Amino acid sequence: MTTAEAAQLLEDFRAGKIPREKVLRAFQAAPAADLGFAQVDTHRALRKNFPEVIFGAGKTSDQIGKIAAKLQEHGQQVLITRVNSEQAKLICKKFKHAVHHAAARCVTIEKKPLPKRAGFIAVVCAGTSDLPVAEEAAVTAAIMGNRVERVFDIGVAGLHRMLARMELLQSANVIVAVAGMEGALPSVLAGLVSKPVIAVPTSIGYGASLGGIAALLAMLNSCASGVTVVNIDNGFGAGYAASQINCLVTT
Amino acid sequence: MTTAEAAQLLEDFRAGKIPREKVLRAFQAAPAADLGFAQVDTHRALRKNFPEVIFGAGKTSDQIGKIAAKLQEHGQQVLITRVNSEQAKLICKKFKHAVHHAAARCVTIEKKPLPKRAGFIAVVCAGTSDLPVAEEAAVTAAIMGNRVERVFDIGVAGLHRMLARMELLQSANVIVAVAGMEGALPSVLAGLVSKPVIAVPTSIGYGASLGGIAALLAMLNSCASGVTVVNIDNGFGAGYAASQINCLVTT
Amino acid sequence: MTTAEAAQLLEDFRAGKIPREKVLRAFQAAPAADLGFAQVDTHRALRKNFPEVIFGAGKTSDQIGKIAAKLQEHGQQVLITRVNSEQAKLICKKFKHAVHHAAARCVTIEKKPLPKRAGFIAVVCAGTSDLPVAEEAAVTAAIMGNRVERVFDIGVAGLHRMLARMELLQSANVIVAVAGMEGALPSVLAGLVSKPVIAVPTSIGYGASLGGIAALLAMLNSCASGVTVVNIDNGFGAGYAASQINCLVTT
Amino acid sequence: MTTAEAAQLLEDFRAGKIPREKVLRAFQAAPAADLGFAQVDTHRALRKNFPEVIFGAGKTSDQIGKIAAKLQEHGQQVLITRVNSEQAKLICKKFKHAVHHAAARCVTIEKKPLPKRAGFIAVVCAGTSDLPVAEEAAVTAAIMGNRVERVFDIGVAGLHRMLARMELLQSANVIVAVAGMEGALPSVLAGLVSKPVIAVPTSIGYGASLGGIAALLAMLNSCASGVTVVNIDNGFGAGYAASQINCLVTT
Amino acid sequence: MTTAEAAQLLEDFRAGKIPREKVLRAFQAAPAADLGFAQVDTHRALRKNFPEVIFGAGKTSDQIGKIAAKLQEHGQQVLITRVNSEQAKLICKKFKHAVHHAAARCVTIEKKPLPKRAGFIAVVCAGTSDLPVAEEAAVTAAIMGNRVERVFDIGVAGLHRMLARMELLQSANVIVAVAGMEGALPSVLAGLVSKPVIAVPTSIGYGASLGGIAALLAMLNSCASGVTVVNIDNGFGAGYAASQINCLVTT
Amino acid sequence: MTTAEAAQLLEDFRAGKIPREKVLRAFQAAPAADLGFAQVDTHRALRKNFPEVIFGAGKTSDQIGKIAAKLQEHGQQVLITRVNSEQAKLICKKFKHAVHHAAARCVTIEKKPLPKRAGFIAVVCAGTSDLPVAEEAAVTAAIMGNRVERVFDIGVAGLHRMLARMELLQSANVIVAVAGMEGALPSVLAGLVSKPVIAVPTSIGYGASLGGIAALLAMLNSCASGVTVVNIDNGFGAGYAASQINCLVTT
Amino acid sequence: MTTAEAAQLLEDFRAGKIPREKVLRAFQAAPAADLGFAQVDTHRALRKNFPEVIFGAGKTSDQIGKIAAKLQEHGQQVLITRVNSEQAKLICKKFKHAVHHAAARCVTIEKKPLPKRAGFIAVVCAGTSDLPVAEEAAVTAAIMGNRVERVFDIGVAGLHRMLARMELLQSANVIVAVAGMEGALPSVLAGLVSKPVIAVPTSIGYGASLGGIAALLAMLNSCASGVTVVNIDNGFGAGYAASQINCLVTT
Amino acid sequence: MTTAEAAQLLEDFRAGKIPREKVLRAFQAAPAADLGFAQVDTHRALRKNFPEVIFGAGKTSDQIGKIAAKLQEHGQQVLITRVNSEQAKLICKKFKHAVHHAAARCVTIEKKPLPKRAGFIAVVCAGTSDLPVAEEAAVTAAIMGNRVERVFDIGVAGLHRMLARMELLQSANVIVAVAGMEGALPSVLAGLVSKPVIAVPTSIGYGASLGGIAALLAMLNSCASGVTVVNIDNGFGAGYAASQINCLVTT
Repeated sequence: MTTAEAAQLLEDFRAGKIPREKVLRAFQAAPAADLGFAQVDTHRALRKNFPEVIFGAGKTSDQIGKIAAKLQEHGQQVLITRVNSEQAKLICKKFKHAVHHAAARCVTIEKKPLPKRAGFIAVVCAGTSDLPVAEEAAVTAAIMGNRVERVFDIGVAGLHRMLARMELLQSANVIVAVAGMEGALPSVLAGLVSKPVIAVPTSIGYGASLGGIAALLAMLNSCASGVTVVNIDNGFGAGYAASQINCLVTT
Repeated sequence: MTTAEAAQLLEDFRAGKIPREKVLRAFQAAPAADLGFAQVDTHRALRKNFPEVIFGAGKTSDQIGKIAAKLQEHGQQVLITRVNSEQAKLICKKFKHAVHHAAARCVTIEKKPLPKRAGFIAVVCAGTSDLPVAEEAAVTAAIMGNRVERVFDIGVAGLHRMLARMELLQSANVIVAVAGMEGALPSVLAGLVSKPVIAVPTSIGYGASLGGIAALLAMLNSCASGVTVVNIDNGFGAGYAASQINCLVTT
Repeated sequence: MTTAEAAQLLEDFRAGKIPREKVLRAFQAAPAADLGFAQVDTHRALRKNFPEVIFGAGKTSDQIGKIAAKLQEHGQQVLITRVNSEQAKLICKKFKHAVHHAAARCVTIEKKPLPKRAGFIAVVCAGTSDLPVAEEAAVTAAIMGNRVERVFDIGVAGLHRMLARMELLQSANVIVAVAGMEGALPSVLAGLVSKPVIAVPTSIGYGASLGGIAALLAMLNSCASGVTVVNIDNGFGAGYAASQINCLVTT
Repeated sequence: MTTAEAAQLLEDFRAGKIPREKVLRAFQAAPAADLGFAQVDTHRALRKNFPEVIFGAGKTSDQIGKIAAKLQEHGQQVLITRVNSEQAKLICKKFKHAVHHAAARCVTIEKKPLPKRAGFIAVVCAGTSDLPVAEEAAVTAAIMGNRVERVFDIGVAGLHRMLARMELLQSANVIVAVAGMEGALPSVLAGLVSKPVIAVPTSIGYGASLGGIAALLAMLNSCASGVTVVNIDNGFGAGYAASQINCLVTT
Repeated sequence: MTTAEAAQLLEDFRAGKIPREKVLRAFQAAPAADLGFAQVDTHRALRKNFPEVIFGAGKTSDQIGKIAAKLQEHGQQVLITRVNSEQAKLICKKFKHAVHHAAARCVTIEKKPLPKRAGFIAVVCAGTSDLPVAEEAAVTAAIMGNRVERVFDIGVAGLHRMLARMELLQSANVIVAVAGMEGALPSVLAGLVSKPVIAVPTSIGYGASLGGIAALLAMLNSCASGVTVVNIDNGFGAGYAASQINCLVTT
Repeated sequence: MTTAEAAQLLEDFRAGKIPREKVLRAFQAAPAADLGFAQVDTHRALRKNFPEVIFGAGKTSDQIGKIAAKLQEHGQQVLITRVNSEQAKLICKKFKHAVHHAAARCVTIEKKPLPKRAGFIAVVCAGTSDLPVAEEAAVTAAIMGNRVERVFDIGVAGLHRMLARMELLQSANVIVAVAGMEGALPSVLAGLVSKPVIAVPTSIGYGASLGGIAALLAMLNSCASGVTVVNIDNGFGAGYAASQINCLVTT
Repeated sequence: MTTAEAAQLLEDFRAGKIPREKVLRAFQAAPAADLGFAQVDTHRALRKNFPEVIFGAGKTSDQIGKIAAKLQEHGQQVLITRVNSEQAKLICKKFKHAVHHAAARCVTIEKKPLPKRAGFIAVVCAGTSDLPVAEEAAVTAAIMGNRVERVFDIGVAGLHRMLARMELLQSANVIVAVAGMEGALPSVLAGLVSKPVIAVPTSIGYGASLGGIAALLAMLNSCASGVTVVNIDNGFGAGYAASQINCLVTT
Repeated sequence: MTTAEAAQLLEDFRAGKIPREKVLRAFQAAPAADLGFAQVDTHRALRKNFPEVIFGAGKTSDQIGKIAAKLQEHGQQVLITRVNSEQAKLICKKFKHAVHHAAARCVTIEKKPLPKRAGFIAVVCAGTSDLPVAEEAAVTAAIMGNRVERVFDIGVAGLHRMLARMELLQSANVIVAVAGMEGALPSVLAGLVSKPVIAVPTSIGYGASLGGIAALLAMLNSCASGVTVVNIDNGFGAGYAASQINCLVTT
């Protein structure tokens, strides 16, 4: 029940068209979507112009297609993450506006992209192997209405590569820093900029990298203030949080 | 070496006052403090109006006092975290403007507090045992120039306590959510608000809580989008990151 | 050796038909199956109307078939868990009453289903990916003679979905709560109902979910009283324990 | 906001006393405490005749005293767990009906104990070192209105001790089985009884017991069906869940 | 250099057939196989009548064949562990006396089996899934000249199965106890017999069994004295150690 | 119920002195202590001449004294492990024959020591810090009637120290090898002897030794056949198992 | 910008050919490669005669080919690690001087091999399964201009094999010691030589080897001084570090 | 047994003074100390001019004193690590040349310091809390005859501090890099220098630093080539290995 619908309900009640019990029941017995905090939830979707995201892994192309179709009915942006190329091909065949972001393992469906906010989100990564995670963050942030600057392959083993891009990095509203192995990039970066840094550990590495745990622990123990962390390989989560933060600038 | 100094060096060289080797060495050997990005670092301190923070644990009151005195010389806010009551007493004796925030295990020294930004940061915690960490976040955010609303003891075992405060929580620019044990609070919260949620796991619990690892893992695996995480018990880090985010609103 | 047989043995001894040594040996050398507590074991199977369950993983269809045939000889319910579709097809071909519960990865063989107990067990899960584990719990509880209500996809990220079903959930005798990722569902649920909640962590998630360890730890550290936990993905165990509890109601 | 208040609000609106916006806001912003499920929460406390439990560890005697006093105002049972002898002495001095259960590290305050339910809960433990945890479970179950039978020191290394008590154990409605080290007791027990077994791992052991993790893992992997598990040393949680289950018998 | 060869060398020296330097060099420059402790090593092989064992996993059938051929040249027993059926087929084709123990994943090649020692080793396992590991232990012990009694599927969930076999188990010189999941079998067994129990955890289980770590930890924390433990799934190691112990009986 | 008692019962029944029901009940309800396998347990104690051992840690001197007194009543050896010097002093004051083995943290009480078996157990350790654990193993083995040879401080960092003692080590019936840090001693040793090696990891070390886990894992992964392992710091368990093995020699 | 280029720039400035701004910009705006520490980086490549190494895993043959081609343009050695046989075949087809080191899973491309330094690096491994990692170390060290002596299959279970090669091992400038399972080789070795030992744990093993963690921990806890450790299976890293050390000899 | 002694033995045998068996036994039973590789061990101590080091933790001042006295008898350098101030005071009272390095928690006793080698070892650390470990490395390297340059408090959060010291760092023969928390310093450093970097993780940090495990893992996963790692807090080991490497320069 939208605010408009609720207002109509009240007017109908005042106009004597419906009994009081019906109004009460609408508010009381209503599924959560009709309760205060759930309406807020709907408000949020309207305000943020962004619906639920589809996690493609483990879903059939058919299942993805059905959910995407339902989301699209409401004229909204659709983001599908963790799709393989076969899934992507089938989805792109089905949806006219579908775009396969192969490097990001994502498909987006946008009839009319959201207008871009002022300012931008920088998505950086340490090595070329971290690229899929970084791209997932970038595609997520982009479809949510943010300008994104990619700065890839600037790992700390060749510090000059990062230092050479400091001017750009210092201009970002928020930085998503993606790294595997020892995960030092966010720490070094956060020591050099004053904006929030969202660190994304990746599962890149072997042996004692423990599938990304090494990078995760390093990021959580960052000696530089202002670093927050998401799950291993969670590029989507980082892009989403970055967008939430970037939203605040233009509020 | 500033740009002006570099220009002078070149003129001296052209004027034959100094040999070529000296110019080359100056650029090659130049300490980082003289390079662009290091100057930026100084700019950042000025721009953010906030200096280095003193981690009190493991330092003597005397050591803390000396560092604080040096920071205060520059007329800046001083924040000292993880101080015990004995340390706090000695520092408060020494500094006129020192305030001991006992619950937060912090001491602040402010001749003239920073003006508060518009909007506020909500600091919430699940149980009363999480309070010291939540207070550390709150004190950190406050001294950095943010208005802070505390919403304590709203753990998920009594969901209504949190729901009762949703209106306030939805008005915050950013939420710091502190919880130990199963660490579910940030997930539940992030499902209900559209603002960034910074999750702080605490070491509250026993047995399989593994000193906070259980809560940390839960938060990293949050099914709600937009949750980022800091180290166990790191109230300071969360408060700092929240302030960085809140800064963006008024940029 | 049943009680009747033991009585006969004693009478034969008194009648001088057998020597004392034979009686003594019968009691001393008797296999456990003949001892008191083992007879109890047999009694238990009769009383509970439920025999051993076949764990299908790692067994051939032929092996499963033989065990199932032997169990069926005694006219009992047969439950086979963790079967893949190929195994299921072969078993269903062999047994007339076999039913393949594909979503639960189970096959059941019941000539005559057990009568259902009064009251019901609620099986809830957080996300659609948790469905196979939840279905395993539901099928297990059902074949053991319980009515089961399924309430799926009510994860804490959209709290209203769970709240909308509270009336039903509060009417259950016992709740099986299945969740992966941060595993917060049982905690939130147990805070809202007065009945036992059996939590089942699933291996759904990636990175720091550590194959379900994150959800497992969260559930063990639940701040809500009355939550007990079974192994990761152990839908069968939860359904079985729930049935044991539900049995008590009608005792 | 109660149903009556909501009805009044609507009438006021129809009567033109309040604007439509106020009605809408009231429903949107309504605190959870006013919603159905929160009232249910209050009902639950009444129905179960048992209020919140005080976790004494880390609280001052004064804090405990204040919370206990408030609980007692409502004429309810008070259970305080994890109290040391000094805390206990102070509380017992303050409350007339306070009883210190030293072995359980608990204090109970009951003006009028709850009537005991029919049937009983068996609390068993493997070794004498597990006794404090077992006693915590027993005291918890007892104050919640259950008869409790203690069967201590029946670890699997001397199997006959457990077998000698099978008759009693098989008569219990539910069994709480407490064990440290290899934690095998619940598995062996659950193979011999048909009632729910709640396993409590303890931190008793050294080296590879990892503070109880070894016992916890063993219990989670029990080959006997019907075992559910609580956190390490969580005697309270087990006693509470056992009481919830025992409640069902008399429903 | 065997003792006989060394004696001959000395006699040749005394007889003036070879110079002193040659004798010295033989003892000094000799490869390790010729040094005191290495001769002991050779002595050991002779005394124990058992050579190196071939770990088949990761080796090609060709590699295995070559090593086996070289071992057979010395007329010795050959044991190859962890072979798959394809490897086994190829080896059996190549060696006349090769026997494929499919359940044990082993191949043995014995022209003339060792005579069996008096007394026997009992190899027990908890469940049918533990069988391959138990068989590996049994085959290893058997080829090393021991009589082996297999007692399979006597897990603690059905205690009577184990108790029914106590007479046999108590007659063994040493017991190899194989179990996965909660790994309780060795503890229960060791409480009932006076002979050494070698515990073998298996990787049977899922979720919190952590690939056998749960069983391993349980066994290391056994409350019954006299349990020693080998690596997860290491049936060979247990069979070997059991044989070393059984050797002592007939020394 | 002993065999004699059971025979009497049967005769009384035949003589008509007692009803059949009484005989049946006696066999059915008989506590485990009266069943075959429990009598075996008693037999075992007699045969091995060694009673239960007292684990002193966490017990009061008074508690230890009472248990020891009861054990001594039966004229048996008493072994108390993990006692501190204060406990030891009090026990020695109370028992005339008590001996405090300070290095082993044990007290023994023997009116008349057991006669020593032929052959000996070697107890070796890598460093002087491992000595308490090694001494615990040695004292345990000694009081159980074994000759013990101590070979201390022969860690692998100075390999010659171990090699210099090979003659002695090769003469032992069984070797207990105690080591912390990287725990390599048992592997190296087992490569050089043909007798069983029981490895005891110790908690000696820091950082990545993880309280002995590093040594434990190393020993479990020993590339030398015939190594079995006990819990970290479990000198008692190793000494006990070694005695069980050494027993076999003289059977 | 090399030192020579920088000197030329300054001369051009003095000669009035270019304005001061151009010089300043060259030093200020220059990418990191032009800054002091980055020039050092370039110097390093020149001095060490070795460029970046290509990690083949996860890259397509095409990607590898392009990077290799670019590196070869500068006339440098090319080392590609972790290539499978298919990748290797394609690369060898494309590059004339490419050599596939199958055992090492590496391809090298050298128009003109570097001259070998005096002295040599010993690469030793414990078992034949450790060979791929040892070969990776050996190939890495060799292409970087070092003489390499391979000493394979000298694990501590047969100590004489290692002792027989001590003379060679003691002549090495630095030793790379590769071992899986219990990882004892580097400790034993470092106790016998005076040169730096670089330990490489491998993932060889099963069960409690935890994918190489057991060996890694053992090596980090080595009781022999002078052992440093690299990541599990990181033969490349060990060969590289060994080359850096061997470089020092000839400086 | 020296070569001379062995020759004599043979002559005595030829002269008929001793039986053949005696000669054989002498060679078979020869202790390792008499074999080539053990003599090498003694040579090593002479050549390196450095004896065994005393690990003070857990030893009494008296024990330390006795070992130190014995070492000093041979006129050698004495290094005692991990001593507290009380131990240090007592040792300094006893030994004339003893020096207490309080920050390093070490005592050294040198009648005549070793001459310093050419070149130097740089010991760097990230934060002031890492200082004790860094000092331990520095004191160890210094007493072994190396010049040491300390560069402290140059953590990556303020990158300019490290960059400002690059000239010095690039001149070192080998660098010991000490860091806790996220342990990023060695990676960043190793990307900028061409010399071996020995990384020392410290236990500085809290929560997810897991007592130094986070830093350890980060260092093992360093993306910069040439980093080798020692145990957490093992300053001594790093200093020792650095000295071994620096030795090579002057060979």
